[in-house]
Amino acid sequence: MDSFLQAALDEARAGLAEGGIPIGSVLVLDGRIIGRGHNRRIQQGSAVLHAEMDCFENAGRLSAAQYQRCILYSTLSPCDMCSGASLLYKIPKIIVGDNVNFTGPEDYIRSRGIDVVVINDAECIALMSDFIQYNAALWHEDIGE
Amino acid sequence: MDSFLQAALDEARAGLAEGGIPIGSVLVLDGRIIGRGHNRRIQQGSAVLHAEMDCFENAGRLSAAQYQRCILYSTLSPCDMCSGASLLYKIPKIIVGDNVNFTGPEDYIRSRGIDVVVINDAECIALMSDFIQYNAALWHEDIGE
Repeated sequence: MDSFLQAALDEARAGLAEGGIPIGSVLVLDGRIIGRGHNRRIQQGSAVLHAEMDCFENAGRLSAAQYQRCILYSTLSPCDMCSGASLLYKIPKIIVGDNVNFTGPEDYIRSRGIDVVVINDAECIALMSDFIQYNAALWHEDIGE
Repeated sequence: MDSFLQAALDEARAGLAEGGIPIGSVLVLDGRIIGRGHNRRIQQGSAVLHAEMDCFENAGRLSAAQYQRCILYSTLSPCDMCSGASLLYKIPKIIVGDNVNFTGPEDYIRSRGIDVVVINDAECIALMSDFIQYNAALWHEDIGE
């Protein structure tokens, strides 16, 4: 597996070990990870810290020029919120580990100029499908359903 | 002025008093404010806590049924990120104090079912235009430009 997607998967597993929803993300600038994050709904009672948002937050305040050279990796297809954050900062490329368990507005963000590459990695898919199987209510809360 | 938009404006002014970007928001459920927020970019070094995101975060974890009865008030037209969060949680209605200084993807979120009502209140517009005039770099950072 691509080492950056592996780093996102490591984040997802760290979240699971904390008792959280296992979705992870990393932000890569010029070939180097500058932010890592995972879903914090349970750990922090957070309604906004999906993995990608936690990752953007942990990367800190960046310039527009920096965001526009970044690649965002996420173990799961970014939802409307996380896709919207990527549009706000004009992230040019997103690598998605799994869009089988959930598919965000990929076509819309492609139409706005983001290159969305879907890997559908077996480990990413299995981690999320196992979680959903045993934690359906939490999962549905996380996606507003 | 509508008392809920006034509460959002009070949040924006509280942010300005802290040295922050003056954008405020409140979330109203069944006629009662359940979350208040303002932009925290400067105060917390935050890349994700726009006013509406701070407001969602402060409202805490809600059920899908609760979100779907909410009205979101914001002094400024929600950007792609904050619009995306509203789509994620299926917020049915957003009241916008000002879309003169900035206009988010209002047509897109209307096409996804959100009723977006633009007030263009003179106080909301003046607060933001004054800030932008003297803090152009900060403002551009906040909208990824």
